[in-house]
Amino acid sequence: ADNVRLFSLNSNPKLAEQISQRVGIPLSKASISHFADGEIKITIDESIRGCEVYVIQSVSDPVNTNLMELLIMVDALRRASAAKINVVMPYYGYARQDRKARSREPITAKLIANLLEMDQISRLVTIDLHAPQVQGFFDIPVDHLQATSLFTKYIEEQNLGDDIVVVAPDHAGVNLARKYAERIKASIAIIDNRNDEVRERTEQEVPEYVIGDVKGKTAIIVDDIVDTGVRMNLSAQALKNFGAAKVYGIATHAVLSADAVNTLQNSPLEKMIVTDTIQLPKEKEFSKLVQLSVDDLLKEAIVRIHNNQSIDTLFNRK
Amino acid sequence: ADNVRLFSLNSNPKLAEQISQRVGIPLSKASISHFADGEIKITIDESIRGCEVYVIQSVSDPVNTNLMELLIMVDALRRASAAKINVVMPYYGYARQDRKARSREPITAKLIANLLEMDQISRLVTIDLHAPQVQGFFDIPVDHLQATSLFTKYIEEQNLGDDIVVVAPDHAGVNLARKYAERIKASIAIIDNRNDEVRERTEQEVPEYVIGDVKGKTAIIVDDIVDTGVRMNLSAQALKNFGAAKVYGIATHAVLSADAVNTLQNSPLEKMIVTDTIQLPKEKEFSKLVQLSVDDLLKEAIVRIHNNQSIDTLFNRK
Ligand SMILES: Nc1ncnc2c1ncn2[C@@H]1O[C@H](COP(=O)(O)O)[C@@H](O)[C@H]1O
Ligand SMILES: Nc1ncnc2c1ncn2[C@@H]1O[C@H](COP(=O)(O)O)[C@@H](O)[C@H]1O
Repeated sequence: ADNVRLFSLNSNPKLAEQISQRVGIPLSKASISHFADGEIKITIDESIRGCEVYVIQSVSDPVNTNLMELLIMVDALRRASAAKINVVMPYYGYARQDRKARSREPITAKLIANLLEMDQISRLVTIDLHAPQVQGFFDIPVDHLQATSLFTKYIEEQNLGDDIVVVAPDHAGVNLARKYAERIKASIAIIDNRNDEVRERTEQEVPEYVIGDVKGKTAIIVDDIVDTGVRMNLSAQALKNFGAAKVYGIATHAVLSADAVNTLQNSPLEKMIVTDTIQLPKEKEFSKLVQLSVDDLLKEAIVRIHNNQSIDTLFNRK
Repeated sequence: ADNVRLFSLNSNPKLAEQISQRVGIPLSKASISHFADGEIKITIDESIRGCEVYVIQSVSDPVNTNLMELLIMVDALRRASAAKINVVMPYYGYARQDRKARSREPITAKLIANLLEMDQISRLVTIDLHAPQVQGFFDIPVDHLQATSLFTKYIEEQNLGDDIVVVAPDHAGVNLARKYAERIKASIAIIDNRNDEVRERTEQEVPEYVIGDVKGKTAIIVDDIVDTGVRMNLSAQALKNFGAAKVYGIATHAVLSADAVNTLQNSPLEKMIVTDTIQLPKEKEFSKLVQLSVDDLLKEAIVRIHNNQSIDTLFNRK
């Protein structure tokens, strides 16, 4: 145990603290501040020579600053002779820029992978990547965790009845919906987003079409990211139009940009259920929002990663 | 000429436009914007296949965003089959983090070099690096330009008389001061900053000691960066205390963070002379500030870089 160190940077201090308590190892001391000109200043305040280090940081808003904090921290850790540097990135930012949709676009999700590998991290632990292909952008080990069981457990506890339908908010979401449907033994429906194009062209509100039977059912929309909330809201409205009794929203990563808080609070959703992979400021909390913690999931991952190195008695230090 | 392309990102659009006019090639079209969640979105709006590309961007405040813009742009250019990607970085941010001053610190100036090399840029053009050693952080060609002649030309035009003394604001600045002194045939003085430590410890204003004769002379303090302006102001006060008739300040890079504008405007300086390697917002301009442009210097560099490839008739396109 003595050679394991956990560090939190500035994106998720709350989650990091919870992980630290569950793992039973206090967070190590480092100061991550800014010079007057905005440059990041990092100093590590205890020896980490030969240590197995875990750095907890999401690439969430402010994305570029949070990413640079991570890269600079890893640089400092490596120069301070850390034996292994494991990056725990609950939310992998820029994951939606994972392919060239048009000519002459960057593939920023791959750039992030390149930056992390160049910085010589040993391993990446992350949750619900926007596209699982992003794992292949790395040559180092990537532990790709899933928050599904957190959500299914929550759903079961809510006693939502037997007549549940899991809804994919677009065609790309069908795989995820099927996974949920299998676990909670529910049927599936799909929001047909062929009207996106019409909506953009005519700038009019065009209702979505729902494929599948939702009448009188409890509908649960599942997605990986809820960003502006526009698609989630449109989907909920469509489900209501098609006769759903109640509608819930699930998304692992609560980006909640632009007017998401109002959009979601004023939507037909009963609840919007997310995790804490992205730490939300007070002003982004709203009464319909339910936040589940990934702390146990990440604690388990850290213990398992460490145990693969066959040191079992570790995680009871103080 | 047909295969040369100039791109401006968001740090220095004004300077980029001036360079473009001097080189005689219009800036190529690209849109660099942000998604609602703060992620950078870049698309290049014309073909650059097989082109020799120059990207103009300083790593100035907001440093992390400006750096990421550059890295993402280079990623997009490379994927769009640019033949050569030359980065013109008038101000190289993070250059003061160029060594481990204490244990367990990062060397962020080297990290920046690694990031740029990983991103496969062909060449870096930059001006007055905080430490010339930073060139050695790269294995690709670095053109390290100097703004000295801009400043000496300005000084000569001002007719400041024959009795000029060039002043290094600390011991590390003596080399730069000697360079100026040789060019304008002046003597040298040094601000002895041994009191920095006392000042920090006692939190009292301790005046600086001046080494060298400044009595009745026109003193010109020379530095590479003027950041908070505190050291520049202290140095100016010391020179006045030691009898200097007039004091001028020179610094290539106008970081001007914290309360720099007031500090400098209310200092004993006659003028604070800087360049436009960092583009200043309106609220950072003040009456004592003189901004000289590095546009000609960078135009010359671009022409010379291109001509080494022996295509002489280039820069008259359109
Ligand atoms: N940060 C972002 N915010 C909103 N849209 C994005 C973002 N990053 C990428 N996109 C867009 O999202 C689309 C990819 O999403 P998807 O089809 O769900 O994989 C592409 O059209 C991207 O241009
Ligand atoms: N952005 C910055 N703003 C202020 N001080 C800095 C910055 N970056 C590095 N430093 C400090 O500046 C010192 C190096 O400056 P120098 O001795 O002039 O090379 C180190 O003590 C650094 O901690």
